Amino acid sequence: MADDGTSGLQIKRRGLMLVLSSPSGAGKTSISRAVLDRDQDISLSISVTTRLRRPGEVDGEHYLFVDRTEFDLMVNRQELLEYAKVFDHYYGTPRGPVEKALGAGRDVLFDIDWQGTQQVAERARDDLVSVFILPPSTAELERRLQSRAQDSHEVIADRMAKAADEITHWSEYDYVVVNKTFEDSVAKVMAILDAERLRRTRQEGMSDLVRLLRQGQ
Amino acid sequence: MADDGTSGLQIKRRGLMLVLSSPSGAGKTSISRAVLDRDQDISLSISVTTRLRRPGEVDGEHYLFVDRTEFDLMVNRQELLEYAKVFDHYYGTPRGPVEKALGAGRDVLFDIDWQGTQQVAERARDDLVSVFILPPSTAELERRLQSRAQDSHEVIADRMAKAADEITHWSEYDYVVVNKTFEDSVAKVMAILDAERLRRTRQEGMSDLVRLLRQGQ
Repeated sequence: MADDGTSGLQIKRRGLMLVLSSPSGAGKTSISRAVLDRDQDISLSISVTTRLRRPGEVDGEHYLFVDRTEFDLMVNRQELLEYAKVFDHYYGTPRGPVEKALGAGRDVLFDIDWQGTQQVAERARDDLVSVFILPPSTAELERRLQSRAQDSHEVIADRMAKAADEITHWSEYDYVVVNKTFEDSVAKVMAILDAERLRRTRQEGMSDLVRLLRQGQ
Repeated sequence: MADDGTSGLQIKRRGLMLVLSSPSGAGKTSISRAVLDRDQDISLSISVTTRLRRPGEVDGEHYLFVDRTEFDLMVNRQELLEYAKVFDHYYGTPRGPVEKALGAGRDVLFDIDWQGTQQVAERARDDLVSVFILPPSTAELERRLQSRAQDSHEVIADRMAKAADEITHWSEYDYVVVNKTFEDSVAKVMAILDAERLRRTRQEGMSDLVRLLRQGQ
């Protein structure tokens, strides 16, 4: 609710889900990290996954690592906002923590692909702000994928094929950012976030302020 | 159209109409000026009006000043994107210059009230981005109206009455900005402008880039 109308007033707002999708290698992960670093009101959605934990990954911080049986249980209980099979593993987003954040006026960032985005759009369209990040050229995309030294040629080839497929879904997103330079792209995603917070429909406390203004208070 | 895919590429986009509306005295005019000063890709729509020219106003720069007969002719020829009677005078927006700007990828700022905004929404909804600016409190609104020394008490009373009416239309706008401080409000309007330029539907050249990416070029 709006407070007493002084200059310190804070309008209560509903949080939003910021989805960033891109073909692998377009720079999405670096951009996501920068947004999370620079903005205190948004946090990363922690996904649940059946894939094996990689070196350096912490359970409950990078992912919730579960086995296939547990994952299927979460699906059956409708505890997931979206889920998808990516390569040979399942990934999903637990619904509870997201709903809690949105209700408290905090935003949640999703690093999911077009399959997940479509499911979120079906289940929570009004809360969704979707951004597709494109590489500036195929040459740049290949360069970025090849610079991940730990991956085999097969993995890179798989990713290039998946990238070509993923790109076909760009036209389902609200916004499109061409990742020409890192700083420019971060600024653009931050502008989208700042603007979407100002949408009338998200500022739930605004009618209280208007009532005070109309009453001459 | 997209160019050859180098880092200098510019995606062709369609311009947008940024409408700022507010009750008189909420700070809209100062915010509009700052946005026009700081952003080179947006220019102010020049309105046509039947009201008398005030000292310091230049015909064709601040307004196109016409008589009632000329104004009615423009209405009948459907040359106006919107028009409205405000107090005892008519104001309108010539359609031609706006369409030309949008087609060339330039944005146009409109300083119009809810009546004009409704008409623009009817005629060009996809190009419209509407922002309503609210004062933080009634006390602040009164303070700002009274500080315009050249206006009589009657004019101020008229404006307060009109402000109360104008405020009822806040819920018809895409975005709402509470004008707590000038710099904060300018930053918010700039973020809305930056974000809306990134909407997929406005980036007309994006399909060309995607075609190149899909072809591996």
